[in-house]
Amino acid sequence: MSTYKLYYFSGRGRAEVSRLIFAAAGQKYEDIRYERDQWPSHKSEMPLGQMPVLEVDGTKLPQSLSIARFLAKQFQLAGKDNLEQAKVDAVVDTTSDLVSKYMPVHFEQDPKKKEELILKFLTEELPKHLQNLETLGKLYGNGGPFFVGNHLTWADLFFYEMGGNMLQVDANCLDNLPWLKKNRTEVEKQPKIAEYLKNRPQTQF
Amino acid sequence: MSTYKLYYFSGRGRAEVSRLIFAAAGQKYEDIRYERDQWPSHKSEMPLGQMPVLEVDGTKLPQSLSIARFLAKQFQLAGKDNLEQAKVDAVVDTTSDLVSKYMPVHFEQDPKKKEELILKFLTEELPKHLQNLETLGKLYGNGGPFFVGNHLTWADLFFYEMGGNMLQVDANCLDNLPWLKKNRTEVEKQPKIAEYLKNRPQTQF
Repeated sequence: MSTYKLYYFSGRGRAEVSRLIFAAAGQKYEDIRYERDQWPSHKSEMPLGQMPVLEVDGTKLPQSLSIARFLAKQFQLAGKDNLEQAKVDAVVDTTSDLVSKYMPVHFEQDPKKKEELILKFLTEELPKHLQNLETLGKLYGNGGPFFVGNHLTWADLFFYEMGGNMLQVDANCLDNLPWLKKNRTEVEKQPKIAEYLKNRPQTQF
Repeated sequence: MSTYKLYYFSGRGRAEVSRLIFAAAGQKYEDIRYERDQWPSHKSEMPLGQMPVLEVDGTKLPQSLSIARFLAKQFQLAGKDNLEQAKVDAVVDTTSDLVSKYMPVHFEQDPKKKEELILKFLTEELPKHLQNLETLGKLYGNGGPFFVGNHLTWADLFFYEMGGNMLQVDANCLDNLPWLKKNRTEVEKQPKIAEYLKNRPQTQF
């Protein structure tokens, strides 16, 4: 049996998809959360000086999506064969495209500039990327509520988390996207996920 | 036997890593290249209206890295087990981080703004991300010239292509990074890769 330690800050951020995978799998792990003032003394312990990092049987892995994909494969949440896994990866990459468009908005400090960026994001980026995800759900979901092959994969968990962040930005962003809305509802109905969501630390991001 | 069609523009861009994987595997495929003026009439044939797209046995897959990872797994170039594959993915994601920092520079049209962005990229981003890759090569390479597990994977092919683009921006960028330099030399010495590089269409990007 492998042992797992997940290192990240005290927030959902780039680690939460892996925590959701652990939760869905019912797999124990050490959820190590560093406060901002603790981080400088731990930075040099990480391969690239950044987090999240997964330590598995002594090996340290950086990169949030590489970590999540590894865990999903360990726990049969990555897709049943290579083609299913590729569809799952395509959904994850399409979700990542959306996240990467949001990051500059999120980190902008100047209030006037931030307002402009949010407006541009809400009109030009968010609807387009969500529509892409709705399209993939219908294309690969075999008529079911999960993104690929009629069963839960980490693509659903990643969109659950990132879609939640988008709903914080625009509470109505899924109103005309019934497939995505149903997908998130089905994810949070999964008993182990429901249990995790009820008990996870409450943080803003 | 599966049949493969790869759809992209007439350039290396986001499709070249998959072409390099086909080359390394000695696998036949249809390399379909649309000119810019042909693209509007084909856009609606693609799942997300974008390329590259891989068509495999009738299924169309979008997202360049999902396509490349799928092909790498088909042809045993993705890593031998889940942990090796995660290390390969971490190298790919770290290379992607570099590429994503370069994209705004590449697409900037205003000459003065572009000059400023290039300077910022060359001083703040390029050295940091290349150093991250040098670190991963030494960490996961088992003392050999390939990124993971002493054998060629698609992490090497992706860095070969993207490192080549970076050398077009700054011909000296690998001068103090001996591991990365050696890695690229070893990749182009692989007989099937050498053959492909000699014969591939010459395009600027």
